[in-house]
Amino acid sequence: MVQYCLGRAGDTGSLNGNPVGGCSHPTLGERGEGVDLGGSVGPPRNWKGIGIAMVVILAVMSLVLLSVVLEMPFMEHLIQQYETLTVKSCPSFVSENEVVLKTREGHILSHDMLSNLTFSLLDNSTLVGDSSKEYLSLLLSTLKWLVCVCVCVCHRHFVELTPPEKDTAVLQYAAWGPQGSQLVYVFENDIYYQPDVSSRTMRLSSTGREETVVNGVTDWTYEEEILLTYPALWWSVDGARLAYLTINNSATPLMEIPHFLGGTYPLNILYPYPKAGSNLPSVSLFVVNLYGPAHTVEIIPPEFHGAGDCYISMVNWISSTQLAVRWLNRVQNESVLSVCEATTGACSKKYKMAMDFWQDLQQEVPLFSTDGSVFYLTLPAKQGARGEFRHIASLSTQVSGRSFNFFNCFSIVLCFCKIKERGLLIHKSKKNSYFLSTEESRQSRHLYSAELEGEFRRHCLTCHLIDHCSFFRVHFSPNLTHFSLYCLGPGVPKVTIHRTADPSSYTLLEDNAQLFVFLEGKRLPENSFQTLTTDNYGSQSVTEEFSLDWPEVLSSTSNVALAWLDCRNRVSRPQRSSTLDHRKLDSLRVKDQLAAVEWLMQLPYIDRKRISVYGKAFGGYLSLKMLAATNQLFKCGAAMAPITDFKLYSAAFSERYLGLPEKEEHAYMAASLLEDVPKLKDEQFLLLHGSADAKVHFQHSAELLSRLVKVEANYSLQLYPDEGHALKQEQSIQHLHRTLLHYLQNCLKHDPFLSYLEEEEEEDEDD
Amino acid sequence: MVQYCLGRAGDTGSLNGNPVGGCSHPTLGERGEGVDLGGSVGPPRNWKGIGIAMVVILAVMSLVLLSVVLEMPFMEHLIQQYETLTVKSCPSFVSENEVVLKTREGHILSHDMLSNLTFSLLDNSTLVGDSSKEYLSLLLSTLKWLVCVCVCVCHRHFVELTPPEKDTAVLQYAAWGPQGSQLVYVFENDIYYQPDVSSRTMRLSSTGREETVVNGVTDWTYEEEILLTYPALWWSVDGARLAYLTINNSATPLMEIPHFLGGTYPLNILYPYPKAGSNLPSVSLFVVNLYGPAHTVEIIPPEFHGAGDCYISMVNWISSTQLAVRWLNRVQNESVLSVCEATTGACSKKYKMAMDFWQDLQQEVPLFSTDGSVFYLTLPAKQGARGEFRHIASLSTQVSGRSFNFFNCFSIVLCFCKIKERGLLIHKSKKNSYFLSTEESRQSRHLYSAELEGEFRRHCLTCHLIDHCSFFRVHFSPNLTHFSLYCLGPGVPKVTIHRTADPSSYTLLEDNAQLFVFLEGKRLPENSFQTLTTDNYGSQSVTEEFSLDWPEVLSSTSNVALAWLDCRNRVSRPQRSSTLDHRKLDSLRVKDQLAAVEWLMQLPYIDRKRISVYGKAFGGYLSLKMLAATNQLFKCGAAMAPITDFKLYSAAFSERYLGLPEKEEHAYMAASLLEDVPKLKDEQFLLLHGSADAKVHFQHSAELLSRLVKVEANYSLQLYPDEGHALKQEQSIQHLHRTLLHYLQNCLKHDPFLSYLEEEEEEDEDD
Repeated sequence: MVQYCLGRAGDTGSLNGNPVGGCSHPTLGERGEGVDLGGSVGPPRNWKGIGIAMVVILAVMSLVLLSVVLEMPFMEHLIQQYETLTVKSCPSFVSENEVVLKTREGHILSHDMLSNLTFSLLDNSTLVGDSSKEYLSLLLSTLKWLVCVCVCVCHRHFVELTPPEKDTAVLQYAAWGPQGSQLVYVFENDIYYQPDVSSRTMRLSSTGREETVVNGVTDWTYEEEILLTYPALWWSVDGARLAYLTINNSATPLMEIPHFLGGTYPLNILYPYPKAGSNLPSVSLFVVNLYGPAHTVEIIPPEFHGAGDCYISMVNWISSTQLAVRWLNRVQNESVLSVCEATTGACSKKYKMAMDFWQDLQQEVPLFSTDGSVFYLTLPAKQGARGEFRHIASLSTQVSGRSFNFFNCFSIVLCFCKIKERGLLIHKSKKNSYFLSTEESRQSRHLYSAELEGEFRRHCLTCHLIDHCSFFRVHFSPNLTHFSLYCLGPGVPKVTIHRTADPSSYTLLEDNAQLFVFLEGKRLPENSFQTLTTDNYGSQSVTEEFSLDWPEVLSSTSNVALAWLDCRNRVSRPQRSSTLDHRKLDSLRVKDQLAAVEWLMQLPYIDRKRISVYGKAFGGYLSLKMLAATNQLFKCGAAMAPITDFKLYSAAFSERYLGLPEKEEHAYMAASLLEDVPKLKDEQFLLLHGSADAKVHFQHSAELLSRLVKVEANYSLQLYPDEGHALKQEQSIQHLHRTLLHYLQNCLKHDPFLSYLEEEEEEDEDD
Repeated sequence: MVQYCLGRAGDTGSLNGNPVGGCSHPTLGERGEGVDLGGSVGPPRNWKGIGIAMVVILAVMSLVLLSVVLEMPFMEHLIQQYETLTVKSCPSFVSENEVVLKTREGHILSHDMLSNLTFSLLDNSTLVGDSSKEYLSLLLSTLKWLVCVCVCVCHRHFVELTPPEKDTAVLQYAAWGPQGSQLVYVFENDIYYQPDVSSRTMRLSSTGREETVVNGVTDWTYEEEILLTYPALWWSVDGARLAYLTINNSATPLMEIPHFLGGTYPLNILYPYPKAGSNLPSVSLFVVNLYGPAHTVEIIPPEFHGAGDCYISMVNWISSTQLAVRWLNRVQNESVLSVCEATTGACSKKYKMAMDFWQDLQQEVPLFSTDGSVFYLTLPAKQGARGEFRHIASLSTQVSGRSFNFFNCFSIVLCFCKIKERGLLIHKSKKNSYFLSTEESRQSRHLYSAELEGEFRRHCLTCHLIDHCSFFRVHFSPNLTHFSLYCLGPGVPKVTIHRTADPSSYTLLEDNAQLFVFLEGKRLPENSFQTLTTDNYGSQSVTEEFSLDWPEVLSSTSNVALAWLDCRNRVSRPQRSSTLDHRKLDSLRVKDQLAAVEWLMQLPYIDRKRISVYGKAFGGYLSLKMLAATNQLFKCGAAMAPITDFKLYSAAFSERYLGLPEKEEHAYMAASLLEDVPKLKDEQFLLLHGSADAKVHFQHSAELLSRLVKVEANYSLQLYPDEGHALKQEQSIQHLHRTLLHYLQNCLKHDPFLSYLEEEEEEDEDD
């Protein structure tokens, strides 16, 4: 299922690659004043008359198409202003009846749902509020955002978290346990525990080594590619046990990143980064008993094809003594879901899966029934002509292997709103499960409930609930009595609190009224959705989510049509346990994207001579691949930090797609962008890279550049010194937007003289 | 004395920054076929009619001005071809009557001046000729060129040079001694000696440490900034003693240069590189006795202001037991020339000099009379209205201090033809001295002889000797009975051999006849010279040297006027022993250059709206300083590997100009280009850098870029991955030329419509 969204920006399509630390939500508005989207209230434009250019902007998995008319009055002003439309507040449930949120200014507020009152807990830095356990918990997660200062607020005073024997240690992570004020934290790659805030610190691990062995937190590979979170520890529900990973990189090659600025001599940062074919970090899962004398048990991986190098992609407590653990083989085409006994370390295989490239399936936490006899997972299944979708399936824990039942078919999607929310959003009460689904439409995302027993009858809780809201994010209170609903679009975002028993009555926390008023009468981009093929399905980047970012600004002020594309994320599955198909995926994706461009070019308001493509990282790779695969179909392109050779990229990523480089030499060569350089010779494009990019190393662009120099290619270059994969300096971000904008505008500039000539020609042809 | 050369390329003005390994000389021609300089034999152009643009190209110490008319038919072809006009042959005297030269194809030929016969000694790789001592010597220097392979040819067989105890050591340097077949070589930073080719190897030093301590060869600082040669050992005339430097970098910070290409992980190269204010290498001079048991004496530096950190900038044997040594203080504003006893290590001060920025004076080898009572040096002296020039002075060795006599005044210049030939070219027979001088004209360089006794009557040996030749390089045979003359211009270069007693009869070795024929009828750039100020003098980069390089191609095909400038190299000397004046020099140089531009803009054939500036390294710094100092005087500029902050540059260079950074904070800040970034905001320029530049680190451009990003400056960027200060890859060099050319052409493009408007405006004004 290839889907289009024309004229709007999705999550991954954002040109601002900055991760919004912690949880972000779309409370917009307050500083919206002064922002002019450049639109005028007036009759619809005569598209033919103004000669629209088209830019294709390609993000990681999506296409953005822009139609440009060069009129720049508000542009500079806008670019400076729209950055202020960011979101800061982060409500979270601290009890069944209380949410706490952080305002844009950094104040911590508490909202009580019973009394419907909001009061201030903390101003920017001073403790003013209550010091309940929940409150402590909140503050710790706040501290985590603030890059882990070593201070924890409780009982109206600050308690410093330092391990007894160290003076200058830097806190890496801290979290509350489920019981009382249990505390766990990580210092210098080792885990420390306090039964409560005032008690003595116990050291739980001692193997931590700088740069090589970490306990309880992830290394680069696990944070970026496998677990996608920084903490790597999990409390049992009763707080009696703590499971944690030990990740050992002593055999992993170190990557060195130069930092040029500020010193007399450049400073090089080293960290373990396994590139394709290199030694991987070895991972072990331990469970430590916290009640009584600390006692640590290592969880023994089940035997499966691919033992040796393996990853642990999911850990979750099922009961106070049982853990669900998912193990992955090195090339990630096979996984084993096992149930492990925390007391003995023994695991039994429950579900073995051949992978079809759906990385996020690997992080999915299965939902176990109270008696542990059944668990629920999402699995792909055919749904008639609409293609394959992921459906909730129930599996028996009593039978090892692959026996499962699908429930009534309906589509379900994972919530992709940043890393924090990964994992299947199934919340389960005694009788019901709650999940997000695209059943209503591909670009929507509604909250559903379904009875677990009987017919699994499902019910949409959010459909037609709030005006102009059909794309949601949701957070449940601990016992599911309430949920907070984040209406992300297509209208101006809102945040509401609902009782689960009666969702229709709710409390409005934020309606962005100021933004709403401000946008009234402004000409915002119009969206349209289109399904092109039904062969396959993809991740959901084409959505109805509201966005006011660089692409919207571009669309509003420069009359650009933008397009995003959900393209094939997997090929059909004739051979479940080989990497054969995966290796073709890159070319299939390029094909999909190009097919989409062909279709778009037939739209009446698109100038087929003015199309451009943009992408970052893997999207940058695809952008340049598309340029190379076509002959000046695109007037120009832009690639930010493109992957140019999968041999130089992360083992976990490259091997998942292409297998081991020593075995799949040909596949690596075919996938490499470096081999395509001669085909890029006559294409015009802009290459951008941060020199300190720790994810897609500048090495990628260096290899590309050295070849581009050889063929005298027609490229422009922009380098951001000491900037990483996501630009950090506000000025760099502004510069990136401006550079892209000016580059695209210049490249897609409508030349009236040339147009005149072309029209003449066309008329001649008509004659 | 500010001097101009309009329309031609000088040595330092070459855009091709590649060092021509070993000795290069201008034997041109053989592959000139197919090179079309784009000129047509026809009437002179109507300059006004075609609207000439002007480009100022600034090299290290010089200005290049170009006038451009965009007509590009031959350009691509030309750029590909002109690279073939490089020079390879390198004649050198191996005896009084024999020169040996290497052909373009790598063959070694010998020319006997008595018989006037030329015969082949060696073809590319095989030994075919005689194996006399001189012949061996030649081969060794050939080996040195070929990056020091461990094989030495003698007696018709190869003798491998390896130290007895090592197997895999790499030869760093090898040279013959003055007696018999004495051999010295350096392996792994230690010196080895063989009394003859077949005898046992003796180890002369044992302190060598990889990357920190070197013996007999130079480290980065001494090779690039102080001695300007790789070897750091000197034979006494009788071969009984060897003097050598030990350079200890154990306290010097290491610089790390990333190399991105070719590997899975980037490779970082480390080497000691003292930046301004950092710890310097400590240097010691030793003399080892080679006859009898090896016995090493350390030469004790004389006491002088600035002891502590010091440099040794010149070592030369006066007799079999005496050495002349020049010591420099850290900031290089004071030097002491001393005579040292090799037997005891004691030195006595002979001449103390406050420095006025004339770095090359520090490498000048003084010429001692046979009895050692008198030595000759060049010293600056006023010459009436023509400003200051360097003159030969005689000094007594009997008096310590500053007593000296100037000979009759006449100007003399150092030979700057690459590093190899640095040092004052005075050759001395019993009665005569021989030297190069600019007395005839500032842009010429003739060979003179003068009687050492009596009136010091001088005689020009080369004036009017050969047609179209007024700029020479010269090599004397060991006993000065012959010299080879390299006519470098203004006509097509020639190489001749002369008898010293009667220079007027000579043998022609090379007349580049093919090139001469080829160039006949072609329109080559016309040169004109102009002196603007007489305040001061500079290095001689404005010369009549023949050149067919990138600038000439540009001038010939694109109708560009090029200008070089010899500007102030020093300020007037009110305070001899302070750095006060030096610190102003940078701004004075910018002033000089701008004054020159002002003057050039008044020339009738220069379009004052189309001027550009180019420079590399320090020239890149000056280019950008000029852009910053003016308000769109230049239509655009280009800077290759610019120094942007002297704190980041070599201590030896930065401190010579600006003093110690901790004392001269303000001077460093004023000199820094980074402070000028806001003034660069509206200037248009191209920034180029090799990412592995070991001289001007990419760090310079990174610091500049990060500030340019902040002010949203209008620059373009070109990065050459893994290329050093001088580009090595042929394709990179081509790319550089093309990039510069296209950038300049695009920036200076003559817009007929705009011109029309401007003319209209002017006419209106006239009305």
